[in-house]
Amino acid sequence: MQKLAIGIDVGGTNLRGGLISQSGEMLKRLSLPSEAGAGIEAVIGNLKSVISALKSGGVDIVGAGLGVPGIIDTQSGILTQAPNISSVKNYPLRAALERELGGEFPIFIENDATAAALGEWKFGAGAGFSSLIVITLGTGVGGGMVLGGRVWRGRDGMAGEIGHTTIHRYGARCNCGNFGCLESYASANAVRRMAGEIIENHSLNTSLREYLAGAPAERIPEIVAQAARLGDNSALWIWQEVGEALGIALANIANLLNIEAAIIGGGLSNASELFIDYARAVVKRRGLSAPVARLAILKSELGDDAGIIGAGALAFGEIR
Amino acid sequence: MQKLAIGIDVGGTNLRGGLISQSGEMLKRLSLPSEAGAGIEAVIGNLKSVISALKSGGVDIVGAGLGVPGIIDTQSGILTQAPNISSVKNYPLRAALERELGGEFPIFIENDATAAALGEWKFGAGAGFSSLIVITLGTGVGGGMVLGGRVWRGRDGMAGEIGHTTIHRYGARCNCGNFGCLESYASANAVRRMAGEIIENHSLNTSLREYLAGAPAERIPEIVAQAARLGDNSALWIWQEVGEALGIALANIANLLNIEAAIIGGGLSNASELFIDYARAVVKRRGLSAPVARLAILKSELGDDAGIIGAGALAFGEIR
Repeated sequence: MQKLAIGIDVGGTNLRGGLISQSGEMLKRLSLPSEAGAGIEAVIGNLKSVISALKSGGVDIVGAGLGVPGIIDTQSGILTQAPNISSVKNYPLRAALERELGGEFPIFIENDATAAALGEWKFGAGAGFSSLIVITLGTGVGGGMVLGGRVWRGRDGMAGEIGHTTIHRYGARCNCGNFGCLESYASANAVRRMAGEIIENHSLNTSLREYLAGAPAERIPEIVAQAARLGDNSALWIWQEVGEALGIALANIANLLNIEAAIIGGGLSNASELFIDYARAVVKRRGLSAPVARLAILKSELGDDAGIIGAGALAFGEIR
Repeated sequence: MQKLAIGIDVGGTNLRGGLISQSGEMLKRLSLPSEAGAGIEAVIGNLKSVISALKSGGVDIVGAGLGVPGIIDTQSGILTQAPNISSVKNYPLRAALERELGGEFPIFIENDATAAALGEWKFGAGAGFSSLIVITLGTGVGGGMVLGGRVWRGRDGMAGEIGHTTIHRYGARCNCGNFGCLESYASANAVRRMAGEIIENHSLNTSLREYLAGAPAERIPEIVAQAARLGDNSALWIWQEVGEALGIALANIANLLNIEAAIIGGGLSNASELFIDYARAVVKRRGLSAPVARLAILKSELGDDAGIIGAGALAFGEIR
């Protein structure tokens, strides 16, 4: 019987799970509300339901991996902090879940951005590289790293916060309190901020105002992408800002770490054709020639599934 | 007989060598002109002289380590590039030197910033940490890294170029061609640039103009430090700029890598009391709380000897 792993991406809104083969294919998928606002016990109940549903039908499960948005001590399986799950601090998530499941198979817990990096590294755009960063341009900006063939989590499991590196000393305010973070320029929130500033500038003649009239906030990045594809200058400028900021951050990574690849995922990567070449040009202009020549800048291959597949890969135990 | 290693810091101007004990003490030291302008054969001749002088007197030498300003393939011992040594490209430095010395003991070759990082890690301010960066604020800004107890050299031996990471998108021009690099704000060259701009601004009333009248360029940072200690506002502002730039770069490192320590060396660190607390405050203001709480920001303990001692440590073979 084929050995399979369960991978689950634990989001603040949904648990998205999959049955993953050893070659990284997702054979079955499932999504349930996570009910993170109701606290960790509710989340564990829902995790149990996802796992039960995925393992039904007599499959041979080697283990289950979870990508969790928070700070994880991967050795002990303790969830140190998780801003999106109500009142969690230093919670022994692995032990609790193994107990709930009767120790049927081992559980692996990883930070969600790191799980996505693992997915791309083992089965996606990062296959074959030994050092890379996966940058997720979503509502915010996340990052996960592999250095010298090993996951780099940092001393406290906090590494990869490329979204909160300053690229512009006097730049726009970030949610983290800092000014000029990458996230202030290259996230869905940043696209919304820039679109809002353009629309409110009534001396500016832009069709973006009509495109965005009455649009719900979550659809704004997608509409700004459509407007750019139709040639709206203000919309094109927004994606240029995204590309410039991403390019500065990538040049910094190339020069500091001299790694082999940067893989761009997250919701904004659906519009990557509007900014990725611009980012590449900025990297070339700002970075040193040898590390820049080395750095491949690629679009995510696994998209939203990277975190599920990477969490599954953890359970196959090839990753340290 | 005590086992000793030879460590040599290969500068563009001087070769500075030392006899290093297994506990990192320098028992003997020696400096000779490197004659790097005369080409690699001249440098090799001078390296041979330094090594001969250091090994004289019947000591037991386990090997010699060299810190070289350039790109090194540490596996093959090939000097890929070295801008400060005339017409060197892909030169088999280790093999050439071992041949010259008749294979008496092994030779180890490392990038000079990495050698300095090794020195601080094994025997200086970095002792006991398993992940750190050593940042050298000299004429330019260099960096060497240890991650998870291993030297991180990057894919092409180019890692550590923290001096050429952008902290200010619209910032001052850097020698590398980019704008707003750390090096444009926190190097001896940057202090000279800022002092020059202040002096040329004739509407500005500053005693810096008198302090610096007729001063040779290489003494300017030291004089600006003295002026700051005597309370000159323009001089204090320059060191605040140094501290702000360093602080942004350190916050970026904390957030991206979540490492344990950053050690500040190089000539400017002689004035560290004028900027290091300011840098610490900037890190706290700009970085995320957990990685910032983890990051110790320390002054170099080995100073100019870090590279020599680190090169010697290489020869003891404890380092990969």
